Amino acid sequence: MSTLDAVLSQIDRDFDQSVERLFALLRIASISTDPAYKDQCRAAAEHVAADLDSIGFTAEVRPTDGHPVVVGKANGVSGPRVLFYGHYDVQPVDPLTLWKTPPFEPRIETLPGGRKIIVARGACDDKGQAMTFIEACRAYYKVTGKLPLPITMMIEGEEECGSKNLFGFVRDNAGEFKLDLALVCDTAMWDQTTPAVTTSLRGLVYEEVKITCADRDLHSGVFGGAAQNPLRLLSKILGAMWDDNGRVTIPGFYDGVADLPADIKTDLASLGLTEDKFLGPIGLKHSAGEKGRLLIEQITTRPTAEINGMVGGYTGEGAKTVIPGEASAKVSFRLVGAQDPKKIQAAFRAFVRARLPDDCKAEFTDFSNAPAIQLAYDNPALGKARKALAEEWGQKAVTVGAGGSIPIVADFKNVLGMDSLLVGFALDDDRVHSPNEKFDMTSYHKGIRSWARILAALAQG
Amino acid sequence: MSTLDAVLSQIDRDFDQSVERLFALLRIASISTDPAYKDQCRAAAEHVAADLDSIGFTAEVRPTDGHPVVVGKANGVSGPRVLFYGHYDVQPVDPLTLWKTPPFEPRIETLPGGRKIIVARGACDDKGQAMTFIEACRAYYKVTGKLPLPITMMIEGEEECGSKNLFGFVRDNAGEFKLDLALVCDTAMWDQTTPAVTTSLRGLVYEEVKITCADRDLHSGVFGGAAQNPLRLLSKILGAMWDDNGRVTIPGFYDGVADLPADIKTDLASLGLTEDKFLGPIGLKHSAGEKGRLLIEQITTRPTAEINGMVGGYTGEGAKTVIPGEASAKVSFRLVGAQDPKKIQAAFRAFVRARLPDDCKAEFTDFSNAPAIQLAYDNPALGKARKALAEEWGQKAVTVGAGGSIPIVADFKNVLGMDSLLVGFALDDDRVHSPNEKFDMTSYHKGIRSWARILAALAQG
Repeated sequence: MSTLDAVLSQIDRDFDQSVERLFALLRIASISTDPAYKDQCRAAAEHVAADLDSIGFTAEVRPTDGHPVVVGKANGVSGPRVLFYGHYDVQPVDPLTLWKTPPFEPRIETLPGGRKIIVARGACDDKGQAMTFIEACRAYYKVTGKLPLPITMMIEGEEECGSKNLFGFVRDNAGEFKLDLALVCDTAMWDQTTPAVTTSLRGLVYEEVKITCADRDLHSGVFGGAAQNPLRLLSKILGAMWDDNGRVTIPGFYDGVADLPADIKTDLASLGLTEDKFLGPIGLKHSAGEKGRLLIEQITTRPTAEINGMVGGYTGEGAKTVIPGEASAKVSFRLVGAQDPKKIQAAFRAFVRARLPDDCKAEFTDFSNAPAIQLAYDNPALGKARKALAEEWGQKAVTVGAGGSIPIVADFKNVLGMDSLLVGFALDDDRVHSPNEKFDMTSYHKGIRSWARILAALAQG
Repeated sequence: MSTLDAVLSQIDRDFDQSVERLFALLRIASISTDPAYKDQCRAAAEHVAADLDSIGFTAEVRPTDGHPVVVGKANGVSGPRVLFYGHYDVQPVDPLTLWKTPPFEPRIETLPGGRKIIVARGACDDKGQAMTFIEACRAYYKVTGKLPLPITMMIEGEEECGSKNLFGFVRDNAGEFKLDLALVCDTAMWDQTTPAVTTSLRGLVYEEVKITCADRDLHSGVFGGAAQNPLRLLSKILGAMWDDNGRVTIPGFYDGVADLPADIKTDLASLGLTEDKFLGPIGLKHSAGEKGRLLIEQITTRPTAEINGMVGGYTGEGAKTVIPGEASAKVSFRLVGAQDPKKIQAAFRAFVRARLPDDCKAEFTDFSNAPAIQLAYDNPALGKARKALAEEWGQKAVTVGAGGSIPIVADFKNVLGMDSLLVGFALDDDRVHSPNEKFDMTSYHKGIRSWARILAALAQG
């Protein structure tokens, strides 16, 4: 029997205990945004640190200006040095009345059809997910007396409130954390049977533009036909940001956006994400995205422009014949690949200004300027992870892009120069951040086994 | 000495008394919007009726559901039958603290440079203006013992609150008021020395459009690139309403819009209204109107489209990555000539719907649907009035269009089938509706003389 087989057997044998250990962590109400739960956050950190100490790590609860970070190190083994990132804090639980059972009293429920789920705040995000990795390490340690790789654990307590102290912590201790690869378990499967590696997180440029024309509001009966109207300008300018094929028209916008490798595109196409499946539930039929692209490309691996808000003039009940002096819009861009957020920002501003009469004024506010994160499709670790996941789940592991972002992952790349491999076992119906959050028992069990396989594959060098 | 010369001499001799009579009317606080002034409104009506009785009219104070209407008739003379319209009610006076002297204690002030003005609420709008006509009638009556034409007076008491009971009064008594021509004194001169006849009032189509895409607000990280965004649609659709020459692109929009007669256009051009003069005071330099048209055409005799308000998505402080489910805009059109408001409304709605994907929805609300009022440039009464005004003021009388509207004038046309000749002596600095409202003594004196000349001209048949 290979080491990996022995480890997998150990995981299966020990699974009931794995559930018990997850329950113990779930019972700690480590809500990071509410100062009333400060002690529980610390208790969760100490609980995790003690657990890591018991499975071959040297763990510490390290202070920050907010909740502490658990750092555990397992040295003395060879192979690529990996940093595992997760978080022990959870979202608030309100509205409490919508919970079927108390959020910090974890339980197992069997759904119609036999699917078993663990219900509790944090069951998935991120205690359940983080524990898949810890339990894989535990099994390795039990079977071999050591960990398969040099692993540094970083389990933080402020992810649900923006990781605001972690950025400085990582910068200040870059020497400790700049390793060969980061592993993150905070993302989702494609569906219940299809494992996924998240290989990209879209970046975000978010701008507010305010256009001022006349120095006051005007009566449209008197000035209509002569005075420039900022709503007309905004509509004309922002309406020109897309061509009839849904492509963004801002010059240079697609610089740094590569086409997907053919094999990746084939994989994505095989997932069969249709407009009907994706847009039907929200009452729409047709994608507004770039024509000639797969829907899944449009939402994950292609850049986008959106107007997130717009206001000007009279917006109350009834009618008012006003030409407003000013109007404003919030406009954001999701970035992919090597798109340069500074260049996108400058190109957007130039696009607006080029269309503005010289007696009107545009003012801009910058709310976000973050690049995309992209793991190269030929990264060897990605190939190993996909193979390991396919072996565990019996189905090809797809690479997906995430529309949103995990802020610290950008810092791993930009500050530490380190790629992240994002593997997670969440499902769309996990009710993350909502009442009755859950994690499938299958996600937990096969998640642990998946990490064991990935660690074995990475250890092979 | 001709009859007209005798009448003009009488006006000059009696002018101090004309001022006294105006003062007597100005002392009555006939604020129509405030129920506390109901008795003063009635007192003003009775005052006007008694005055008309003394100069050859048979006058009545006729009840409505609101303030009464004074109707005076002078029969038994030949010539075209005219209806004179004015109003005895005035705007509220607040903020009272901004008045230099009490608003219902009229006084004469001499401005630096020697210009004399009458200061009081209603000095111009419309007591001073209406009295120019009444004093002209009085002089005629004194000199000839009768009035020069069959004149019906209609002096209402609810203009400042929308003439809401007058519409029904006119409809119910159409037989009495359907005469040959209406005369109205509630408009302005071009400037202190240039008399004007207002020959058009722009109509108004005012629509609200609400566009609904998804059935809820969406996260732009998840749905961005696929879900249609109503702000994008609204911007694209409304931004397409004007071409690069400032012309409205809605099909059929200019149906019924005639070019100005060459002589009228020459007159308007000679007024020299520049972008600098008109737009400079509000901080603008360039007209946004139709290229190749005079600025004065753009603001008075050409139709326009404006976005009066627009709102959707997140409009608070900071950033929110939302794709809104719906967005709305208020859009209005000023109409001229024979533009059909129903057709314009339908064309706008079709313009929006034609640009809407079939999974998105547009809903419309109609806030106004009023046609323009246009006096034909070759109307004989207009020619006579312009000649009479030119003789009085020593300067050609221009025809101008007004951006706004006088609601009852639309009813004179649409219900009674009667044109209105709008001649007024207000000036831009009269502070109508504001504290320290005034009327120039010159406007009053030469206004009376102007009406005497116009009545004489109309009487010549």
